[in-house]
Amino acid sequence: MSASAVTGTLYGVGVGPGDPQLLTLRACEVIRTVDVLAYPVNGSGDGRARDIAADVIPDGITEFPVHVPMKVEREPARAAYDEAVKGLADHLGAGRNVAYLCVGDPLFYGSFMYLAARMDGAHEVEVVPGVTSLSACAARTHIPLAGRSEIISVVPATLDEATLKSALATADAAAIIKVGRHFEKVRTVLRALGLADHATILESATNEDEKVIALEDAAEDHAAYFSTILVRREELS
Amino acid sequence: MSASAVTGTLYGVGVGPGDPQLLTLRACEVIRTVDVLAYPVNGSGDGRARDIAADVIPDGITEFPVHVPMKVEREPARAAYDEAVKGLADHLGAGRNVAYLCVGDPLFYGSFMYLAARMDGAHEVEVVPGVTSLSACAARTHIPLAGRSEIISVVPATLDEATLKSALATADAAAIIKVGRHFEKVRTVLRALGLADHATILESATNEDEKVIALEDAAEDHAAYFSTILVRREELS
Repeated sequence: MSASAVTGTLYGVGVGPGDPQLLTLRACEVIRTVDVLAYPVNGSGDGRARDIAADVIPDGITEFPVHVPMKVEREPARAAYDEAVKGLADHLGAGRNVAYLCVGDPLFYGSFMYLAARMDGAHEVEVVPGVTSLSACAARTHIPLAGRSEIISVVPATLDEATLKSALATADAAAIIKVGRHFEKVRTVLRALGLADHATILESATNEDEKVIALEDAAEDHAAYFSTILVRREELS
Repeated sequence: MSASAVTGTLYGVGVGPGDPQLLTLRACEVIRTVDVLAYPVNGSGDGRARDIAADVIPDGITEFPVHVPMKVEREPARAAYDEAVKGLADHLGAGRNVAYLCVGDPLFYGSFMYLAARMDGAHEVEVVPGVTSLSACAARTHIPLAGRSEIISVVPATLDEATLKSALATADAAAIIKVGRHFEKVRTVLRALGLADHATILESATNEDEKVIALEDAAEDHAAYFSTILVRREELS
C-alpha cells in the first residue's frame, strides 16, 4: 500500500463574518472532527478566524497557526504560503486531516486560495463555503446588496483613484472592501460621482465592536479597519 | 398595554445554496423557535428554500407559502408582495414570530427585500445572512471568486447583450447569475470578449443534481436552470 493511500484531506473552512452563530453546520462538523486546526494569524499572533470558531474547537487539538504578512508586496506572502504548505503537507502526508479556518468564505478574498493552489493535487481539498462579510453588512443595515437585473461590483479600496472611479461610475450597487487607510480616497471618489450620500460604512459587521455610520457622518481621520462601504444608486421596490 | 408591545419579529433567514449542512447555527435556531414559517413557492407550489431547511422544520408548525410570480413584468410580483405582507402582518400583529426562508442570502437577489421594504417599520425585522450560491460555486470548483485587488462583478444574464458586454469587458472576475434561457446570449458575449475558455457553468451547486461543465463543452441547446457561470481572466498565485 502506497503512502498516498493514507493521505489526509485539507479542508478550507469558512467561519463567516464574526458572529459565531453564523458558522454553518458543516463548518462545525469539520472543525470538531479534524486532527489539525490551521488558521492565519497576524504579526501579533492574533487569529480572527480562530476566535470566531473558538466555541467549537475541541480541547487539545493540534494547532497550526500560519503567519500571513499583511503587506502590499507579494513576495513576503508567497514565501509564507510556500513555508506553510510544507508544514500542512507533512500533516496530510501522515494521514492527518487538516482544517484551515477562513474569515467569511474561503474563496472570496482570503488566503486559502493560495494554499490550495500550492497543493498541486497531491492531497484532497474540500472547501466549506461560508457567509461573507458583504452578506453580514447587508443583514445589519437592511441595505440590499442587489436585486432583479442589478449589477453589483465588489471593489477593493486598495485600487488607485482612477480605477475606483471607473469601477464605481456605472455600478447599480457596489461593496467597497479593505477600506482601512484608504477611507478618504474612497470618499473623494464617491463624492465626485455623486454617490457619497448613498453610501454607508460598516465596521466589524456582526462582531461585538460593530459600527454603522452614514459615509458623510464619518470624521475626516476615520479609521476603518475590517470595514466595508455599501453603495446603492436606487431604492428597490 | 398597546397592541404594538406584543408584535412579533419578521426574520429573513438565508438557508444557503442547497446542501442542508450549509445552514448556519442561527438559521437553525430561528427556524426551530418561530411560530410561523413562510417561504416563496413557484407556480407548481414547489419551495426550494423550504426543501433545503426541511430537516430542521418542527412538525406541525404553521406554514405560510408565498406565491412569487417568476415573470419579467414587475406588476404581478408587486401585487404578490403586497398581498403576502398583509398575511404576514396579521401574524406579526398577533404577536407571532415569523421566519421567511430564502435560498442563499436574504438580501442578495432574493424576494425578502421587497417584503421587508413593505413592513414600513411597523414590525421588527432581523436578517440572518446565508451562504450564497456564488460561494457554493467557488467551493465546488475551487475557482476563486476574487483575491487581492481584483474587482468581481455579479451580472444577471437577463441584461441585454450590450450591457452584458460592457459589464464583462474589464472585469477581473465575474459571476453571471440567472443564466436559464439566456445561455446562448451569454456564451456569444463571452466568446466575443475572448473569455469563453475562462468560463465554467455550474448548475445546482451543492445540490444532489449538481453539474459542472466547462462553458465550451456545453451543448448548444443547453438548459441552465439554477445555474451560474464563473469567469476569471487570470490565475491567482
